[in-house]
Amino acid sequence: MFSDAIRRELAAIVGAEWFLDRPEDLLAYSYDATPLHQALPDGVVFPASTAEVQAILRLASRAGLKVIPRGSGTNLAAGTVPVEGGLVLVLTRMNQVLAIDEENLTATVQPGAITAPFQAQVEALGLFYPPDPGSIQVSTLGGNVAMCAGGLRGLKYGVTKDYVLGLEAVLPSGEVIRTGGKVMKDVAGYDLTKLLIGSEGTLAVITEILLKLVPKPEAKRTALALFPDLTRAARAVSGIIAARIVPATLEFLDQGTARVVEEYAHAGLPTDVAAVLLIEQDGAPDAVNRDIERIAVICQNTGASEVRVAATPEEAARLMTARRTALAALARVRPTTILEDASVPRAKLAEMVEAIGAISRKYDLQICTFGHAGDGNLHPTCLTDARDSAEIARVEEAFAEIFAVAVDLGGTITGEHGVGAAKAGYLEWRIGEHGIALMKRIKAAFDPQGILNPGKIFAHTTRKRVVVRRSGG
Amino acid sequence: MFSDAIRRELAAIVGAEWFLDRPEDLLAYSYDATPLHQALPDGVVFPASTAEVQAILRLASRAGLKVIPRGSGTNLAAGTVPVEGGLVLVLTRMNQVLAIDEENLTATVQPGAITAPFQAQVEALGLFYPPDPGSIQVSTLGGNVAMCAGGLRGLKYGVTKDYVLGLEAVLPSGEVIRTGGKVMKDVAGYDLTKLLIGSEGTLAVITEILLKLVPKPEAKRTALALFPDLTRAARAVSGIIAARIVPATLEFLDQGTARVVEEYAHAGLPTDVAAVLLIEQDGAPDAVNRDIERIAVICQNTGASEVRVAATPEEAARLMTARRTALAALARVRPTTILEDASVPRAKLAEMVEAIGAISRKYDLQICTFGHAGDGNLHPTCLTDARDSAEIARVEEAFAEIFAVAVDLGGTITGEHGVGAAKAGYLEWRIGEHGIALMKRIKAAFDPQGILNPGKIFAHTTRKRVVVRRSGG
Repeated sequence: MFSDAIRRELAAIVGAEWFLDRPEDLLAYSYDATPLHQALPDGVVFPASTAEVQAILRLASRAGLKVIPRGSGTNLAAGTVPVEGGLVLVLTRMNQVLAIDEENLTATVQPGAITAPFQAQVEALGLFYPPDPGSIQVSTLGGNVAMCAGGLRGLKYGVTKDYVLGLEAVLPSGEVIRTGGKVMKDVAGYDLTKLLIGSEGTLAVITEILLKLVPKPEAKRTALALFPDLTRAARAVSGIIAARIVPATLEFLDQGTARVVEEYAHAGLPTDVAAVLLIEQDGAPDAVNRDIERIAVICQNTGASEVRVAATPEEAARLMTARRTALAALARVRPTTILEDASVPRAKLAEMVEAIGAISRKYDLQICTFGHAGDGNLHPTCLTDARDSAEIARVEEAFAEIFAVAVDLGGTITGEHGVGAAKAGYLEWRIGEHGIALMKRIKAAFDPQGILNPGKIFAHTTRKRVVVRRSGG
Repeated sequence: MFSDAIRRELAAIVGAEWFLDRPEDLLAYSYDATPLHQALPDGVVFPASTAEVQAILRLASRAGLKVIPRGSGTNLAAGTVPVEGGLVLVLTRMNQVLAIDEENLTATVQPGAITAPFQAQVEALGLFYPPDPGSIQVSTLGGNVAMCAGGLRGLKYGVTKDYVLGLEAVLPSGEVIRTGGKVMKDVAGYDLTKLLIGSEGTLAVITEILLKLVPKPEAKRTALALFPDLTRAARAVSGIIAARIVPATLEFLDQGTARVVEEYAHAGLPTDVAAVLLIEQDGAPDAVNRDIERIAVICQNTGASEVRVAATPEEAARLMTARRTALAALARVRPTTILEDASVPRAKLAEMVEAIGAISRKYDLQICTFGHAGDGNLHPTCLTDARDSAEIARVEEAFAEIFAVAVDLGGTITGEHGVGAAKAGYLEWRIGEHGIALMKRIKAAFDPQGILNPGKIFAHTTRKRVVVRRSGG
């Protein structure tokens, strides 16, 4: 709990109704979307302006308060859990789309604006904001930027980082910095914009975002391809890329995921095949038709048991919606659903999926895998029960092994969910001791007192490296 | 001059023939492509491997030697001029394309590989590496990465930063860091890859680069549109974007540039119009044809006096080559050619070009302007004479005023050439005092002794801010 003086000061900055510290409030902000991680903050504050954020951070610097910035709390790596207590700084009141500049193809938004309605607003103007994280209906653009959110369109369109032109952010000292601008090219000094994206609230609090927009693709078509085994599905993915086609989305679901999704969504997904690819292409109508036809042929030639091209936009939407419900569907099966995130080079996709299967058998766990085959970003998802501590211990071992395999294959411990508190112990596996030391020095350049989102990205102790023996590989 | 002990140690690392310090050698490495900037180094070293770079930097750290990394020296901001003496570290021996991975669409290259032959190698495989700086025939990929080179395709394809997936780099301490990898999504910690891109050799020495490739566009068409005044040309640019078309290139030449280029290249450019737009679209054949036709109509409707669509690839190539010769052509007119670089939001293009014209008249200078209209990146180019110190003083005043106008219009002091030594005095105008202080702390996180490329990006003293009074604005 904060002292009365601190509480009064915080209430004076934002107004009494926007500072909360009753037990039920603290409980509501003690977790995010990550299972197994929870910690009570000392208070919760909702600033309405950059000036209020500055005042809060000045106070925090002076009094040594820890500050945990957060949007909607959809994080899957415990990135917004106040693991060391402190003040949760919620940016949902700063939720305006301030401007859409059709001449420069930019949008200026506050960090608390929700992603999906913003996308819809942009699309109504014939423009397009491609990043589409799974949490799009709920998550904030500020959270997307802080975590560098990805999504289904990463292969063709990239991730949040590729659509941020500039930021306004408040340093822990309370100073405001402005980075980038409405210029497509800018090499005036180090790229602070990109450095802040994905920094998970550990360097500064983002208070305004300048986004890049592109023209909305005119047409879109969707195909579904079913495979009797993983190898053939992976061969289809390679074949599409070898044909120099980059689809807008190229999603993979294993049999376990397809079954659960179909039970939940009734979208017409088959449940008796080893692997499902869901492929979407967008662009000019002729080019889209030709690409989808070529993709269908490639899937057939690489051994698909069936290829369906959606006949209508409604059928296409139903298929994509089914894919988007994967997490919700999986979450119904057992009490606890741990959605993980590992990324490998595209060519290693089948090897990674097979390794996940072997690990799941080894630890006697139910792990369903789906994800973004086109960009090699997979979401092995464990259906488990947090109350069963023996099983949870096996889950942790299994995921450690999955991360080790991903790193061994030239991949990474997190493609789009972030490091947060959940994966801090694994970061050194990916970036090495020198990398960690360098990142800590960068952290100190922004936040010398270490008050911003403590306990995230950097672990107190690195997990012992799992040595994985794989056959073949 | 270095001590005998240092000279012996450097020769022992790279072999005697790869360490130079005769006066004629020092002279050869005392300048780059930037007029008016020259300084002698104390020695020049050509490492052949990452291990040699490490050994050189360890020695430099221990002995406090200043190290200036450089490729082909095509820099236009005095970024590779050894302004404080020291050791020029030339990376041209590390010039191999190590691998092109067609499955993951990546290329692994050494920093000394030349951009144009690499592009040709990639295109022969049906792949594409879009960044195309003007110096492409000569410049190295390492230099392109260090400066975040841009080029003609920035509007549609982005810049070098958008095509770098990972780096190997040596810190001033001699430690090697490896960032990124063959994964399209990776959020494991701060984005060191993007931070190193455009850091101008002030943070680390890049020793290996992992590049992203895309499929080569199947078709390409080119159009030329002539305008009786700037306003109509700018209206055409806005009109194209408003029609939700993003051309691959959208170049602008003013009358002065068009005249000089036509005299030099005889490509059929008109010399009696106020503004020339050169527009290229690429992609699927049908989409390209339709876009080029729509672009032609938009140019006519916004007041072009003539629109020509190149009938053959040869005619198209002649037009684009003419544009690419702009600097060479301008350089023939007077003894000294100062090619500058400023970037504004696309919607401010006409205003910026007009301001440059007014400034050129005010200071009685010959400034021709051309550049990348699509992304707002302009190259006002002063044809002058370095021996005329009175004129050069006016040139400096004029450019200071141009940078001030660019910043006032929401633009930047450099879009793609970098800050280097030439523009360090202006950086604060763009990023402010807090921005400079923060960047200096980041610099110290990498290079606490300040041995890497000293005198670049950060100025000893910031230039006094020019207050520009503009009519209208």
